[in-house]
Amino acid sequence: MPRGKACTMIDLLVDDLLVRALREDLGRTGDITTDGIVPADAAGRARAVARAAGVISGLEAFARTFALVDPRIATTLHLADGARVERGTAIADVTGPLRGILTGERTALNFLCHLSGVATATRRMVDLTAGTGATIIDTRKTTPGMRALEKAAVRHGGGMNHRFGLDDAILIKDNHIAVAGGIRAVLTRARAVAGHLVKIEIEVDSLEQLDEALDARADIILLDNFSLDQTRAAVERTAGRALLESSGGIDETTVAAVAATGVDLISSGAITHSARVLDVGLDIDEA
Amino acid sequence: MPRGKACTMIDLLVDDLLVRALREDLGRTGDITTDGIVPADAAGRARAVARAAGVISGLEAFARTFALVDPRIATTLHLADGARVERGTAIADVTGPLRGILTGERTALNFLCHLSGVATATRRMVDLTAGTGATIIDTRKTTPGMRALEKAAVRHGGGMNHRFGLDDAILIKDNHIAVAGGIRAVLTRARAVAGHLVKIEIEVDSLEQLDEALDARADIILLDNFSLDQTRAAVERTAGRALLESSGGIDETTVAAVAATGVDLISSGAITHSARVLDVGLDIDEA
Amino acid sequence: MPRGKACTMIDLLVDDLLVRALREDLGRTGDITTDGIVPADAAGRARAVARAAGVISGLEAFARTFALVDPRIATTLHLADGARVERGTAIADVTGPLRGILTGERTALNFLCHLSGVATATRRMVDLTAGTGATIIDTRKTTPGMRALEKAAVRHGGGMNHRFGLDDAILIKDNHIAVAGGIRAVLTRARAVAGHLVKIEIEVDSLEQLDEALDARADIILLDNFSLDQTRAAVERTAGRALLESSGGIDETTVAAVAATGVDLISSGAITHSARVLDVGLDIDEA
Amino acid sequence: MPRGKACTMIDLLVDDLLVRALREDLGRTGDITTDGIVPADAAGRARAVARAAGVISGLEAFARTFALVDPRIATTLHLADGARVERGTAIADVTGPLRGILTGERTALNFLCHLSGVATATRRMVDLTAGTGATIIDTRKTTPGMRALEKAAVRHGGGMNHRFGLDDAILIKDNHIAVAGGIRAVLTRARAVAGHLVKIEIEVDSLEQLDEALDARADIILLDNFSLDQTRAAVERTAGRALLESSGGIDETTVAAVAATGVDLISSGAITHSARVLDVGLDIDEA
Amino acid sequence: MPRGKACTMIDLLVDDLLVRALREDLGRTGDITTDGIVPADAAGRARAVARAAGVISGLEAFARTFALVDPRIATTLHLADGARVERGTAIADVTGPLRGILTGERTALNFLCHLSGVATATRRMVDLTAGTGATIIDTRKTTPGMRALEKAAVRHGGGMNHRFGLDDAILIKDNHIAVAGGIRAVLTRARAVAGHLVKIEIEVDSLEQLDEALDARADIILLDNFSLDQTRAAVERTAGRALLESSGGIDETTVAAVAATGVDLISSGAITHSARVLDVGLDIDEA
Amino acid sequence: MPRGKACTMIDLLVDDLLVRALREDLGRTGDITTDGIVPADAAGRARAVARAAGVISGLEAFARTFALVDPRIATTLHLADGARVERGTAIADVTGPLRGILTGERTALNFLCHLSGVATATRRMVDLTAGTGATIIDTRKTTPGMRALEKAAVRHGGGMNHRFGLDDAILIKDNHIAVAGGIRAVLTRARAVAGHLVKIEIEVDSLEQLDEALDARADIILLDNFSLDQTRAAVERTAGRALLESSGGIDETTVAAVAATGVDLISSGAITHSARVLDVGLDIDEA
Repeated sequence: MPRGKACTMIDLLVDDLLVRALREDLGRTGDITTDGIVPADAAGRARAVARAAGVISGLEAFARTFALVDPRIATTLHLADGARVERGTAIADVTGPLRGILTGERTALNFLCHLSGVATATRRMVDLTAGTGATIIDTRKTTPGMRALEKAAVRHGGGMNHRFGLDDAILIKDNHIAVAGGIRAVLTRARAVAGHLVKIEIEVDSLEQLDEALDARADIILLDNFSLDQTRAAVERTAGRALLESSGGIDETTVAAVAATGVDLISSGAITHSARVLDVGLDIDEA
Repeated sequence: MPRGKACTMIDLLVDDLLVRALREDLGRTGDITTDGIVPADAAGRARAVARAAGVISGLEAFARTFALVDPRIATTLHLADGARVERGTAIADVTGPLRGILTGERTALNFLCHLSGVATATRRMVDLTAGTGATIIDTRKTTPGMRALEKAAVRHGGGMNHRFGLDDAILIKDNHIAVAGGIRAVLTRARAVAGHLVKIEIEVDSLEQLDEALDARADIILLDNFSLDQTRAAVERTAGRALLESSGGIDETTVAAVAATGVDLISSGAITHSARVLDVGLDIDEA
Repeated sequence: MPRGKACTMIDLLVDDLLVRALREDLGRTGDITTDGIVPADAAGRARAVARAAGVISGLEAFARTFALVDPRIATTLHLADGARVERGTAIADVTGPLRGILTGERTALNFLCHLSGVATATRRMVDLTAGTGATIIDTRKTTPGMRALEKAAVRHGGGMNHRFGLDDAILIKDNHIAVAGGIRAVLTRARAVAGHLVKIEIEVDSLEQLDEALDARADIILLDNFSLDQTRAAVERTAGRALLESSGGIDETTVAAVAATGVDLISSGAITHSARVLDVGLDIDEA
Repeated sequence: MPRGKACTMIDLLVDDLLVRALREDLGRTGDITTDGIVPADAAGRARAVARAAGVISGLEAFARTFALVDPRIATTLHLADGARVERGTAIADVTGPLRGILTGERTALNFLCHLSGVATATRRMVDLTAGTGATIIDTRKTTPGMRALEKAAVRHGGGMNHRFGLDDAILIKDNHIAVAGGIRAVLTRARAVAGHLVKIEIEVDSLEQLDEALDARADIILLDNFSLDQTRAAVERTAGRALLESSGGIDETTVAAVAATGVDLISSGAITHSARVLDVGLDIDEA
Repeated sequence: MPRGKACTMIDLLVDDLLVRALREDLGRTGDITTDGIVPADAAGRARAVARAAGVISGLEAFARTFALVDPRIATTLHLADGARVERGTAIADVTGPLRGILTGERTALNFLCHLSGVATATRRMVDLTAGTGATIIDTRKTTPGMRALEKAAVRHGGGMNHRFGLDDAILIKDNHIAVAGGIRAVLTRARAVAGHLVKIEIEVDSLEQLDEALDARADIILLDNFSLDQTRAAVERTAGRALLESSGGIDETTVAAVAATGVDLISSGAITHSARVLDVGLDIDEA
Repeated sequence: MPRGKACTMIDLLVDDLLVRALREDLGRTGDITTDGIVPADAAGRARAVARAAGVISGLEAFARTFALVDPRIATTLHLADGARVERGTAIADVTGPLRGILTGERTALNFLCHLSGVATATRRMVDLTAGTGATIIDTRKTTPGMRALEKAAVRHGGGMNHRFGLDDAILIKDNHIAVAGGIRAVLTRARAVAGHLVKIEIEVDSLEQLDEALDARADIILLDNFSLDQTRAAVERTAGRALLESSGGIDETTVAAVAATGVDLISSGAITHSARVLDVGLDIDEA
C-alpha cells in the first residue's frame, strides 16, 4: 500500500519480507546504474503484461514494493488476484518517477511471477478435478519466508489451505503413533490436550490403520501413498464419518483419478515448492 | 551453527531468515502435536536421505535450523555443499531431543530441498556446457528473501554469480540507453560515475549496438535474445575485446548450442526462479 | 534458557518480549546502583519464595531473564509451572554473579508475579467448577504483548484456551450477523470460506437465535449474557448438537451456578486482564 | 497517529509494542471472520463508551492501533488522557472501513482498558490523600513491555513517576548496604560514581538507619514497611533535610493515614501491577 | 523524507540508523524540558546556518530526522549536498510545531555536522590535488554504523569510494600473500574464485612485489607506505598496466606531492575517521 | 562477549550496533578475499598494539566483534578500559581461526580506535584541569548511534557524563525561556512537571540572568559563552548555591584558565564529535 493511502493488512503481515527483498537488491547504495543515468525528475509509466497464460497472485506485494521504493509511484490494477490471464493480458499500470520504477521492477516482478506461478499450478490441479467433490489443498512444503503469500496464492488458484503451521491443528504422523503406542492411544492423548477449537488429523498407511482411526473418531484422516484401489476402499469404509485426504506424490497426471475415488481433500506440495514462475514482463516508457 | 559451537557467517547474514521461517511454522505455540504426544525427554535420531539424484546445497541452513529449535540437537554432515548424490545417499545425521527434531524437520527440509533444487538445476546446465569456455551464471530473478542462499546454491552447482544487486555493478538496459540518448552517451555517463572497482555491462539487441558498445569499451556486453547465428557473429566481431553474455530464455535444450558459439557467459533465470526441489526425506527414529 | 544450555521454544517465541522488558528497565547504562557498589566478582545466591498462596506460571521467563542478563547465572527450579504454592514455598534458586542477580531481579519477578497471578485467578475459577462438565477458558482480552504467556498461564491454572487470535477460528458476532442478514446467511457464508480445519462459533443473544444457529449447524455457540434460566434452557434445547459457551461478566461469585447449568465452556476476561499479581519475593544473599 | 497526519512521539517510542500486540491478534492471516463476511467497501462508525466510572489513559495507543490496521480509519477524541468519565460517557468516535474497525477493536480496547485501569487506580489513591503534602508515585513493578505507557497512565491519574529504570537514579537497597559495609560507606561510594544530575535514594528499615542516612546526606530516603508511628517519628527527625518515601503494601485502606504523617512520597506497586481494567466498550454500526 | 511525501532511498537504507539515533536521545519519555514548557500548538521556524566554511553533506538525514520526530515539520533546502558554504551561509529552513523542532534539533545537527565534516575534509584533499590525475578515495576506516552515509559524504566532497565492504572487491593484503605462498600464487587463486564482475587489488610493499603483481596482472595495486621516490618509480614501471593506489598516513601536508608522482588513487582513512565536525547551528524562533 | 561465556551488559545494550557495523562490512557474502585464499582450518594469532600514546576505551566492543564473527575466537585483554598506553603497548591478544580474525579486524579496530580517541581527548582535558575543582563533562553532540559507547569512553578518559538524552534531566535553553516568559516563570513551570528525581539546569547568557536563576533555585546553571571575567564573577555571586557549568567552544588552549575560575563543570562537545582516532594496529600471524 502506498503510504498515506488505503492499505490492506499487507503492511503489518508481510512488509518485513518486502523490505528484506528490496534490501537484498538495493544493497548499500541502491540502483547505481539508474541513479547515474536517469534524471531525478524523469517521469515514467510502465505496464505489467502477462507473457504466458495463467492465474495472477501477488498484486498487493507488487504494488507495495513500488510504494516502498518511492511513495509517489501509483499502481493501477486492471484485474484482481485470482484472475486468469492470457499471453498479452495487461495486469497493472505503474506511473511515477522513472528512477523508482526501474529500481523496483525486479523485486516487484519476483513476487508477482513467483506467486502467480503458485496460483497457476494450483489452478491446473483444481481444473483437473472439476466436477468431483475433491478440494485441492496445500502443505507446509513452502518456500521459507513466503508461506502466508504462497498460501494466499493457493486460494487465488482455487485451492484451499491445509495447516498454516505446527500450532493451528493437530496432525499425527507415524513417529507420533509409534511413540504413543498405537492409533487409539495417540488419539486419546491428542484429544486430551486439544482445545475445543482444534481439529485432529491422523496419517494412516493401511486400511487397518484407517479402521482404527475411524473407531477413535479422528476428524480427518490422511491416506499416505494409498493406491487408487486402497483409496476407493477407504472412501467406502469411511462413509462420511471423517474427512479423507489423499497425499503423496500426486501430480497433474494422476490427480483426476484420485479425485474420482471420492476423497474429500487432495494435498500437493509441488504447487508451492516446485511451481514454475508465471512469466510477467514490465514494459517501461518515459512518460 | 549450534550456539556455543563454531559457526560460519550464517548467523550474521541469514539467521533472520531462518528465524522468520521457523516462526511462520511455529506460530504462537509451536508444535502442538509433538508437544502433546512426545515426552520431553525422548531422544531421537534422524537421517536425511536423498530421494532423487542431484546436487546438495543448504547444509548450513539445514543444521542451523535444528540448532535454533533446540541447541542440544547435533547435526553431522556426511558430505559438503556441492556434492552429487544419488537416490538413497545419506546426507546428514541429526541427533538430540526427539521433540526438536520433529519440530524442526519441515523447515530444515524446506531450505535443503529448495536450495538443492537450485544447485541441481545449475549443475545440469553446467554439465551440458562442459568442454566449452562458457560459464553458467545466475540473474536477479531469485525468490524474495533467498537471494544470498540461492546464489550460493548456484556456486554449489558449478555456476558463477552475476550481480548480487543493483549496487555492485552497472548493467545498462534499453531504458537507460533511451534516456541517455544512445550507447556511446550512456557509456560515457556511466564511466563518469563508476568507481574504480565497478565494472560496466551493457545490454544490446543487435550487432550494430554491439559494435557501438565495443567502440565505447564496455567491460561486458549482454546479447539479449540473439539467435545462434547472431551470437556467433558477435563472438567473431568482439574478438576478446569484451566479455559476452548470452541471455534470454536459454534452457536445457538450447544451452549446449549457445555455449558452442564461444560466448563467455550464459545467464539463466530459471535455475533460481523455477527449479524443482530436490526431494530429500528425513527418516526419524526414537534413539 | 541460558545460552549454551538446553532451551524450550521460549527463545524463538518470546525472547523479543523479554529483551524489550529488560531494555525498558536497563535503559541506557544498566543498573548504576549495583554497578557502582557491588564488586564485579561478587557471587550471590537468591531464593524465590511465594509470599501468598497460589499457582505458579512463568518459570521459563523468570529463568531466561536472568540468563539474558548474565549467562553465568543458573536457575534451579523447585517446582513446575502449574504447581500450587503456599506462603513460604520455595520456588527456585538463582546463583551466579551478584550484580546480575540484582539487576535482573525486578524484571524476572515482574514476569513471574504477573503470570502466576493469571494462573491463580484461573485456578480459583476451575476449582469453583470442579465436578461439573464445564471448562474454564480465556478470551482475547489479554495484556498487549503478553498473550502467548498469559494463555500458557491459563493452562497452568487448569483452564483451556479459546482463540489465540483473529485467524485461528471463526467467531461470528452481532455485527457480522447484521451485515450478512441473519444467522443462517452468516453461517452459510462462513462455511464457504472456512478451511477444513477451522471451527465456526457464533454468538447469540436469545433462545430464538440459538435455534437458528443449531439448525445451521454451528460447531460452538456463545451464549452472550444469558441468565441462568436461559442458559439451562439452552443446554436442554441443544442436547449435545453443539458446544455451548457461557460468556459475559461471569466472576467467582457466579461461576459455580453457571457451570451447574451444564454448559461446556465458560469464558472469562478477568482471569487475564484483571488478575492481581501473586506476590513472590527474592531473598538474596552474597554467596 | 494515522500515517500522513500529525503524530506525537508515540510512533518512535511505542509503535513496536502496538505492532507486536496487533500481530499477536492478527496471526498469519488476519481477521478471517470479518474478511469472510464483511464486504471490503462497507463503512462503519463506532463509539467508545465507558461502562464504569474512572479515569482515561491510552487514547493515543487506542487511535494509533486503528491507524496501523487501516490508515483510512479516523479517530475523534471527545476528551483527553486524564479525564474522569462516568458510566456512559462517550470517549471517542472511530470512523472508516468497517473491516478495519472490527479487526482493530480488541487490540485498541486492550490498551485503553488496561491503561485506564492504571489511571483509575492511581486516581483513587491520589483522591484519598488530597489535602496532604504526599505525592502518589509508582514503582518498577510494571507489566513487562508496558512501562512507559503505564507510567504515563500514573501521571494521567494524578500521580508522579519514580525511577523509569535502573539507570536514571541511584536507589540503594539492603543488599547494596550489606555489600558496602553500612549506610555511610554505601552513600560515600554512591556519591563518587553518581553524575551531577543523578539523585541518590536509600532504603532504610529503622530510625537508626534513617539517622545515618540523614547524616550522610541522602537526597531521598525510602522508609521500608515503617509503622505509622515510626513514620511520624521519621518525619519529625528528618525535618525537611531529605525527601521521605513510604513504601510497602500501602493500599486504599491505609494510604490516607500514611499521607497524614507528613511523608513526601507514597509509592504503590499495585496501581500498576494489579489494577483492574476500566471497562470500555465499542458500539459499532455500519455507516 | 517526510512520510506521505516524496522520498529518496534513505528510508529503506538508513532509517534504522536515524531511528536508533533519535531513540538514544529521546530515551523513554522524549524531551521532558520542551514538553513541559512549550505549548503543543506553538509553531516554530528555524534556519540552519553554517558557522564555518566547508562542504555540506547529510541534508537528507537532517530533514528526515525532523520528519521522523513529527511529520508535520517541513524542511526547505537552500542548497544541495556537495555545496560549499561560508560562515553565515543559510543551509535550510525548518518549519512546523516548535516542540518537534526543539526535540529533533540535536540529532539532526549531529548528522549534518558530522557528515559535513567528512565532506569538508575530503574537499581539502581534493583541492590540494587539483590538476593532477589522482583521485582521492576513502577506506573502510569509517565510524561504525555510518559507512553508507560517510561514503556519500566523501563523494559530496569530491572524492570517490573504495570498497564498501569485504564482499564487493578482492583486496589482497600481506597476510593473504603469506598464506598463499607469494604474489603469483595468491593472484592465481583469487582469479579462480572471483566472479566476472569483481576486480582484484593487491597490496605491495616493495618494487619487487610490484613487478610480480604486474606480471600476474592485478587490476589495481596498492603501494603501502611507499616513499615519494618509490612511488615515482612504481608509476614509471607500471606504465598504465594497472591502477596504482598510494596509501599510508597521507595527510594534507603530503598529499600534493604524492599526487604529483602520477599515481591514480590516493586513499585516506583520516577523512572519515578523524574529520572534525563542520559547525552548523540552528537559529530557532517562535513562528 | 563470546556466546556461552560470561558477558557484561554489552549484549543487551549495544549488540545491535555491533551487528549493524559488521553487516555494513560483510555485505552480502562476507570476506571474499579471505574466504577465497585462507583455508578454513588455518589458525591465527593477533596482537592489538597502540601506535600512539593515549587512553584505551572500547575493549568490550573489540572483543565482542570478533566473537560475533566466530565464537571460537578468544580475546585476552592486557589492560582495562581507561588504561593509558604508549606507542608500542600491547593491548590485547586475539586467537582463533585466521579467517575470522582477518574478517573481524577492521570492524573491531574501528570501534577501538574511535572510542580510544574519545577517551584520549577527554583525558587531555582532564589532565589540563588537574588540581582544580572542575569536572570535565560531555554533551549530546555525539556520533549518531554511538552515544552510550562514547559516554563510556568519556568516563574512561576521566570525565563525567552530562545528560544521556532529552528525558533524564531538564535543561532549559533560550528558546524555552522565551516561550515561558522569563527565567522565573520557566523555572516555576519546570519545577511543576519535574519528578522528584529530576534535576533542573538552566542556560544563562548574562550575570543578570544568573541572579534570576539563583533566586529561582535552579540546581545547575550553564554559563553560555561567558568570558573568564564573567565566569569568575558568576562563581563569586553563586557562592555554592548551585552548580555552575561553563560551556561554549572551550578547547585545550583555554580549559585550564576556565577551570581556574572555580566553576564546577566544564562541558566539551569536541571530545566526542571531533576527537581524532587513537591509532591501534593489529599484528596478525598464522598460528
